[in-house]
Amino acid sequence: MSREVKLAVIPGDGIGVEVVAEAMKVLDAATADSDVRFEKTPFSLGAARYLETGDTLTDADLDAIKAHDAIVLGAVGGVPGDPRLKDANIERGLLLKLRFELDHYVNLRPSKLYAGAPGPLANPGEVDFVVVREGTEGPYVGNGGAIRKGTPHEVANETSVNTAFGVERVVRYAFALAERRRKKLTLVHKTNVLVHAGGIWQRIVREVAEEHPEVAVDYLHVDAATIFLVTNPDRFDVIVTDNLFGDILTDLAGAVTGGIGLAASGNINPDGAFPSMFEPVHGSAPDIAGQQKADPTAAILSIAMLLDHLGLHTESTRVTRAVEDDIADRGEAARTTAQVGDAIVTRLQA
Amino acid sequence: MSREVKLAVIPGDGIGVEVVAEAMKVLDAATADSDVRFEKTPFSLGAARYLETGDTLTDADLDAIKAHDAIVLGAVGGVPGDPRLKDANIERGLLLKLRFELDHYVNLRPSKLYAGAPGPLANPGEVDFVVVREGTEGPYVGNGGAIRKGTPHEVANETSVNTAFGVERVVRYAFALAERRRKKLTLVHKTNVLVHAGGIWQRIVREVAEEHPEVAVDYLHVDAATIFLVTNPDRFDVIVTDNLFGDILTDLAGAVTGGIGLAASGNINPDGAFPSMFEPVHGSAPDIAGQQKADPTAAILSIAMLLDHLGLHTESTRVTRAVEDDIADRGEAARTTAQVGDAIVTRLQA
Ligand SMILES: CC(C)[C@H](C(=O)O)[C@@H](O)C(=O)O
Ligand SMILES: CC(C)[C@H](C(=O)O)[C@@H](O)C(=O)O
Repeated sequence: MSREVKLAVIPGDGIGVEVVAEAMKVLDAATADSDVRFEKTPFSLGAARYLETGDTLTDADLDAIKAHDAIVLGAVGGVPGDPRLKDANIERGLLLKLRFELDHYVNLRPSKLYAGAPGPLANPGEVDFVVVREGTEGPYVGNGGAIRKGTPHEVANETSVNTAFGVERVVRYAFALAERRRKKLTLVHKTNVLVHAGGIWQRIVREVAEEHPEVAVDYLHVDAATIFLVTNPDRFDVIVTDNLFGDILTDLAGAVTGGIGLAASGNINPDGAFPSMFEPVHGSAPDIAGQQKADPTAAILSIAMLLDHLGLHTESTRVTRAVEDDIADRGEAARTTAQVGDAIVTRLQA
Repeated sequence: MSREVKLAVIPGDGIGVEVVAEAMKVLDAATADSDVRFEKTPFSLGAARYLETGDTLTDADLDAIKAHDAIVLGAVGGVPGDPRLKDANIERGLLLKLRFELDHYVNLRPSKLYAGAPGPLANPGEVDFVVVREGTEGPYVGNGGAIRKGTPHEVANETSVNTAFGVERVVRYAFALAERRRKKLTLVHKTNVLVHAGGIWQRIVREVAEEHPEVAVDYLHVDAATIFLVTNPDRFDVIVTDNLFGDILTDLAGAVTGGIGLAASGNINPDGAFPSMFEPVHGSAPDIAGQQKADPTAAILSIAMLLDHLGLHTESTRVTRAVEDDIADRGEAARTTAQVGDAIVTRLQA
């Protein structure tokens, strides 16, 4: 009996289109012999669509996407400074809107330094950790405003909103993940300054920790965490943190483990009420778009996360292995986006 | 005619005491032949004082400190988790209170990779930039609160407050600094998500930039900035950013340029209405306190910043040179805190 997975595919803008093309090849190759069929629906969303139609994400788009089992997204965002996009905010109106509307409260971002991957650190050690970034609260809620805008008396505020409901569910997810890994969990926040936002995170981690006596828990201020990420990244197993700190730490973590060209992510709704969304951490990089220069590895590793999420663990592991082997064997010679995708497909077919 | 400078000295807690002792030796040696006399008043403030008297920073303390021309601070903060400090918050009640009450709106944090300094990066290049961190606004204002605290229905908010007045004055300082340096200024924020807080920064940088046509201005999201700090730190000259992003970036910058043991800072009130305060970026490190293990270099470089601030440029340069030479010549052998201070004093006396 074959299983059908309805997959919404949002290539987006810039290099998103190119890397998603390779990711789809890999998805097909990895599942060719399985009894799972992916029914893919492409969605034209992003700066290109906005420039054409003026729409960022309509209710109809959202409803159509919700009718899928999972989403793959490339990258969205136009050329920085494009005057036609002045009032667009594709990030808030599309990417963050998807994360919030689809209740992606776990933003899962693994960082692993693969053998052979180039990295900026002289002695990185064995790096293998996962950042569990909260995805639906914190400073990302869009709860801000300005008075006397554009004048010398402007006041612009931005409020971080943190709820026990929202913090507890992501903290529980992080502890469960730590149980399946090396049983170490680090809370990152800035409790000494943001005493209220930090306080709720600290309390809930302390409470949930009591249910997980096997998990060793520690705490780092976000500034100190960035130091450890470059001096001692092998100290981390699971990091749990808020939406903004998670954003910052995962770009840094990506840089430390071979570059943002390798960093995959999943925006997960663990309850299954809405489709989860898998995307490379990198952006649309309009400066190199359409030139076959982008590394599709982050998008391909996001496919491995998608497969894992769907319970297709064997297929997921095969993709990860193929990527690992590809990274280990890549020489100095530059390859096109398609060449990287093809090389990984060839390994999957071998 | 000799000039007298009234200096408030706050050694604080932990290694603060040890590093300030060396910093004072260096200050004395550097100014021995000048016509400036430093009249030093020690202030007992920090966790130790709190545990003794229950006071964090009294109005009398604050008034006494205000009567000085400048302040040197070591580090404040007790042993993490000390139950007696549960309700203290030395950071907010003392360190941040000083920065806010003394209107230290420029938090100046240079990052320079000195020859011979150990660093985590394989190929750092020539790193020499200054972060101009706003010091009196943003997410640091303490404008937060929680309802239904400690319950499953808790909501904890934290508001970042940004004013045109506050942003403009620090942006002007940063542009003036860039004019005296390599004429490059990078604004770091997260304008695509924090649209109101980010918007005011972007507008004001754009406006002030018009008065500085010689200065090349660019913009980075904070997450991208952390990537460049580890892959390409030599791209930066002057970074201007808000209080929280500045906190994060400068710890990372410290790590990248030889470690937080070398990172100096000045909390500046450029108007001169209040004394400016010079402190190492590192904390009180209770785990190694009293063992003569701390590197006093950051505190000593903070003295160089103090001297510069006081217009004693020759003396400042001599301290910086002595530190540079000390770093270049340090071997592998561990030295005590006092040995490092003495070595630098010896160079100053040579
Ligand atoms: C594009 C932007 C809104 C987004 C974020 O801040 O979350 C990106 O940086 C990311 O990390 O996925
Ligand atoms: C101790 C803390 C309040 C402080 C800050 O966040 O500013 C410190 O990290 C710093 O950078 O000086």
